[in-house]
Amino acid sequence: MKIAVFAGDGIGPEVTAQALRVLDELSLPGLTLFEGDVGAVAYRRHGQPLPDETLEMARAADAVMFGAVGDFSCDDLPRHLRPEQAILGLRSELGLFANLRPAAGFPGLEHLSSLKPEIARSIDVLVVRELNGDVYFGDKGERASAGGREGWDAMSYNEAEVRRIAHTAFRAAMGRGKKLTSVDKANVLETSRIWRETVIDVAKDYSEVTLDHMYVDNAAMQMVKAPGQFDTIVTGNLFGDILSDQASACVGSIGLLASASLGERQTGYGTFGLYEPIHGSAPDIAGQGKANPVAAVLSLAMLLRHSLGREEEAVRVERAVEGILADGVFGGDLGGNATTGEIGDAIVSKLLTI
Amino acid sequence: MKIAVFAGDGIGPEVTAQALRVLDELSLPGLTLFEGDVGAVAYRRHGQPLPDETLEMARAADAVMFGAVGDFSCDDLPRHLRPEQAILGLRSELGLFANLRPAAGFPGLEHLSSLKPEIARSIDVLVVRELNGDVYFGDKGERASAGGREGWDAMSYNEAEVRRIAHTAFRAAMGRGKKLTSVDKANVLETSRIWRETVIDVAKDYSEVTLDHMYVDNAAMQMVKAPGQFDTIVTGNLFGDILSDQASACVGSIGLLASASLGERQTGYGTFGLYEPIHGSAPDIAGQGKANPVAAVLSLAMLLRHSLGREEEAVRVERAVEGILADGVFGGDLGGNATTGEIGDAIVSKLLTI
Ligand SMILES: CC(C)[C@H](C(=O)O)[C@@H](O)C(=O)O
Ligand SMILES: CC(C)[C@H](C(=O)O)[C@@H](O)C(=O)O
Repeated sequence: MKIAVFAGDGIGPEVTAQALRVLDELSLPGLTLFEGDVGAVAYRRHGQPLPDETLEMARAADAVMFGAVGDFSCDDLPRHLRPEQAILGLRSELGLFANLRPAAGFPGLEHLSSLKPEIARSIDVLVVRELNGDVYFGDKGERASAGGREGWDAMSYNEAEVRRIAHTAFRAAMGRGKKLTSVDKANVLETSRIWRETVIDVAKDYSEVTLDHMYVDNAAMQMVKAPGQFDTIVTGNLFGDILSDQASACVGSIGLLASASLGERQTGYGTFGLYEPIHGSAPDIAGQGKANPVAAVLSLAMLLRHSLGREEEAVRVERAVEGILADGVFGGDLGGNATTGEIGDAIVSKLLTI
Repeated sequence: MKIAVFAGDGIGPEVTAQALRVLDELSLPGLTLFEGDVGAVAYRRHGQPLPDETLEMARAADAVMFGAVGDFSCDDLPRHLRPEQAILGLRSELGLFANLRPAAGFPGLEHLSSLKPEIARSIDVLVVRELNGDVYFGDKGERASAGGREGWDAMSYNEAEVRRIAHTAFRAAMGRGKKLTSVDKANVLETSRIWRETVIDVAKDYSEVTLDHMYVDNAAMQMVKAPGQFDTIVTGNLFGDILSDQASACVGSIGLLASASLGERQTGYGTFGLYEPIHGSAPDIAGQGKANPVAAVLSLAMLLRHSLGREEEAVRVERAVEGILADGVFGGDLGGNATTGEIGDAIVSKLLTI
């Protein structure tokens, strides 16, 4: 089993280090780790945010453990050298088409949400976002027009692209509350019309799952008004970018939320994927021991489950995290004063008791 | 002064009737009203949701008072006959490029929001949404692809389009807290790059306004986490659709929120525009006296202000609405039991005292 570790910039290395300690504690047999540069650190060392070596390392691995990218040194770089290009490049080059973003509150931490506690407590949603298509990866450019310079981007989805992510979402819904909400803008977009028709077609294979459709503007309303109504959401790249971040904000505790980006390749143990905390690189607090490593550790749990087929270890890691949160081991972001390392210590100790 | 009244479907006629009573009470000299069909009712009578007569009536008017469109009879109609085409058609045919959506809580009604009261209380934002461009009005269609049928939509903005809406937004910000947040996705979209560059350029004319930029995913997070940080937001048609609805949901009381869609044409009294409550046609409660007419009445206030240059009357109407809410005249949506007509009565009586 090979894991490529791309810790990246800012707090990425600190939180990844704690996830690696937890992984080490699990003593999985036959595991090899490779470290690669990505983001601003890669740009400084290799002149590009996603060097070929990094990409090759990812291709040779069963899973990628990703920290975060971006720091102040990148602010003035042209777009193709900016750290987010590493993210987009990894997604497209590795065929990571399915982004899974669970957003659920942790019992006792509802006060972190700006929503009323009883509403925050009701949130338990998985957003399944398509990650290889849409207006993100269509043709784009600048042209002259009667109104001066014009920026343009081509949005599209075809049946094969929608079918693939819809199957992922229906399968995920089967393992959850068996309710899937497909979010689109089919009253305006042809891209969404094909999206909706294809999702309806795929639904025939999943008669146990209740499917409904929601326009994205309404979904953004409902996610504030009554987020507890959602079980699993499936949506395109652009709407998924917005809604998954909104869902995380509703939960409130960004430092606790993990994500998986899965490809099609089967690894022998599971599905190839990239795992990362949803928080960013937070360069302002980097190196101060203030970062919360929980999201990175929970990303490791997703890695164990999806790419390494280690459900048992995944659950152990998740239980350990729940345990330390129940014990009140909180960093500054949760109103406590535990450092990054102390939170890592606590998770490792807790793991030994599970 | 000519006002075209398009009451539309569902609760549209009921709430519009109350707004008309308020208008009548103001006894504006030289005012003529014209009534036109729009939406499902127009489709039934004329075979299309936006008949030519309706469009001509709007063109000849200084302002359009719009109710709401859509009912169950439309569910199976092909897209070009559906009621939302009337909305899109009016926006493009009349050049209504600037949608103004104020979202602010009413004191004492914070409990209606799913946000914590102190956070709901902090909301006072104006979303300025571009309404004539973006992926809404670009070329679109279906084509064959290697992945089967493919739906596609062209997204774009040119400098002239952005300049126009940016000026509207900066002027609006000047009349508010002098803080403008431009929302885009410039890390991914060329459309957004031109958007951002142009907004930065227009900012030179408004040195008193503080401008910042936010990616749409972050804006959707911030709108939940700390909505009080926003003063005026300017954004494109698609992101504006999502964010303005999200902002309304954060306030909580959808039945109280109004909107204006302004064109370029000057009417002699102000700017030509279309005014509508942000709530929909709610066909499930139509005809039962359950609809809240406040949003329609507040849309009338916007009409008086922007299209008729009647600031004084606009403020009187707004004061009257604030007054009845302070008196606790609430419909079912606000936890009370006043009917549509009773709320209208209360507003009219209050107006006489102001
Ligand atoms: C950095 C950016 C390109 C990226 C996206 O829009 O997908 C990010 O917001 C995310 O959601 O991972
Ligand atoms: C009905 C629909 C086409 C419309 C839009 O997307 O603009 C609506 O959601 C709105 O915001 O007025």
